[in-house]
Amino acid sequence: MTSSIFDHTGPHPEPSTLVAFAENHLDRQSEHRADDCLEVAFKTEGVHAYAFSSGGIIVKHDEQVVDPLFAPYELAGLDPVLDDSILLGFDRNGAPHMAVPVQIAPENLPEPFKVATVRSLYQQRMVPDSLLGEVAQASSLLSWNAANRFCGKCGAPTIAKGGGYRRICSACDHQMFPRTDPVVIMLTIDLERDLCLLGRGAHFPEGMYSCLAGFLEPGETVENAVRRETLEESGIRVGRVRYHASQPWPMPHTLMIGCFAEAQSREITRDAQELEDCRWFTRAETAEMLERATGVGTDGTLTVSPPKGAIAHRLMRDWLEWGN
Amino acid sequence: MTSSIFDHTGPHPEPSTLVAFAENHLDRQSEHRADDCLEVAFKTEGVHAYAFSSGGIIVKHDEQVVDPLFAPYELAGLDPVLDDSILLGFDRNGAPHMAVPVQIAPENLPEPFKVATVRSLYQQRMVPDSLLGEVAQASSLLSWNAANRFCGKCGAPTIAKGGGYRRICSACDHQMFPRTDPVVIMLTIDLERDLCLLGRGAHFPEGMYSCLAGFLEPGETVENAVRRETLEESGIRVGRVRYHASQPWPMPHTLMIGCFAEAQSREITRDAQELEDCRWFTRAETAEMLERATGVGTDGTLTVSPPKGAIAHRLMRDWLEWGN
Repeated sequence: MTSSIFDHTGPHPEPSTLVAFAENHLDRQSEHRADDCLEVAFKTEGVHAYAFSSGGIIVKHDEQVVDPLFAPYELAGLDPVLDDSILLGFDRNGAPHMAVPVQIAPENLPEPFKVATVRSLYQQRMVPDSLLGEVAQASSLLSWNAANRFCGKCGAPTIAKGGGYRRICSACDHQMFPRTDPVVIMLTIDLERDLCLLGRGAHFPEGMYSCLAGFLEPGETVENAVRRETLEESGIRVGRVRYHASQPWPMPHTLMIGCFAEAQSREITRDAQELEDCRWFTRAETAEMLERATGVGTDGTLTVSPPKGAIAHRLMRDWLEWGN
Repeated sequence: MTSSIFDHTGPHPEPSTLVAFAENHLDRQSEHRADDCLEVAFKTEGVHAYAFSSGGIIVKHDEQVVDPLFAPYELAGLDPVLDDSILLGFDRNGAPHMAVPVQIAPENLPEPFKVATVRSLYQQRMVPDSLLGEVAQASSLLSWNAANRFCGKCGAPTIAKGGGYRRICSACDHQMFPRTDPVVIMLTIDLERDLCLLGRGAHFPEGMYSCLAGFLEPGETVENAVRRETLEESGIRVGRVRYHASQPWPMPHTLMIGCFAEAQSREITRDAQELEDCRWFTRAETAEMLERATGVGTDGTLTVSPPKGAIAHRLMRDWLEWGN
């Protein structure tokens, strides 16, 4: 039956819709932009902007509400660099949403403005999901533009075009497009013993264990990258690999590709450069870790999963929920 | 049942193994490389190299055999730039495989050397699959290194490290890693009418139609990129999306992410900037196009699919074979 191509067997029809940073309703129109699109956008009725300083994203923090999207009059007081702005796209009403670097020092920010990290907005679930997706897009594009001010081929200054969706060299005409780095992240499962493999990096919060992950290298399929990374970091050989979900991850501009991986060996040989610990967890232990991540956390003596919204959290939970 | 996570429902357990450039048995060890790894590799017994000139990859063309992998004495006559070489990894015997830019002009190449494009090696199936994967890796890494000779942050020259798997700025210490650009490529299917959606770009060979495709943008999931690209290029709205296979594509350093997409509308509105034509095809028409692609080709009056080994070919064939 043809329709079976789209039949899903897991607990959710599209798990990629259940991770942080995934929702974004802007119409980007990134390939059909005039040279003056920034200038026009800033003059369009309803234009709003995200403001980023060197310390992070600036938000208005009023009582229980955190608002990251500013009208032009609010932006004006933050010393914006309009020439380095990005046109993210247009909302349902046709109003442009922008990303704007600002130069104001954090200590000079008037009330109720504060600086936050993109990571904290997601961890503390402080802004609506649809705005969080725009924040991810904004942060990724500002990072990429800032890292490509000069041409990699000849060293001359580059010029932003298409509202920050392209850069062109002022000397050799070399064109550059925003980069997105694919990372494979996998929950490796021992089917026979009904265990999953998790590790922790030295920089993780206390007690946290997560899925293994690593950058896909040039010349690799997704499935082979999952096998190589799992073998390198844990010594575990992987057989079958199943794609599960993807997630935009704006630190700085990554595409997380989440997979389940079938373990073909049991003995862990940890890469000490990458991981502080790596071990097998039962379903019961995994369920407790997920529960702690949505609750009050731990004192560091108990294990905990990454927070809800992280694709690793999704992989762990969906392993438990599979078939239920 | 836990094991159902890895049960496959399509015609192949891992379709990513059936596309060109996917096979590669080198042990890259890309994260554990000493500063002198290039120098050591060139002195290691059994070292072999791929040679790339500005016109393409150099091969030895003897009667029916095409050999792209050279011993040091063969490389020496081609005016190699050893400092810009890449350590790809190590074969089963521990012999290093390298990628080396060479400066010899094509017209000065002695017999039996010839210049070929990476694309022609794949289209004409001239080298074994496992070497083709190494050629893809080599070509991607040489392209990336050549495009990052200067720092994007400050414009100063960069220095290759780790055998070409990293570059560092000589002035500001900014580190750069090889980039791989995710592209979504999708066969969009009208389940009710049992048709698939194909288009042709103006640069395609005569008569060829293929899956729609486009770069994933920062801040997108794979599934949302499939929906956006399909809508932009064809005007067709997509509902469910199913990941099928991935492929490394070395022009210059892309990861093709192949999906099936479920059409939710029928009326095509073609993006004339991207596509010369776009239309629905029956199963019978699709089967004929695939047949022609593996045979003698067409005179341009008949439609043809991309060649075997292309992920678009795989998506078309696996749609037809699904459930058989």
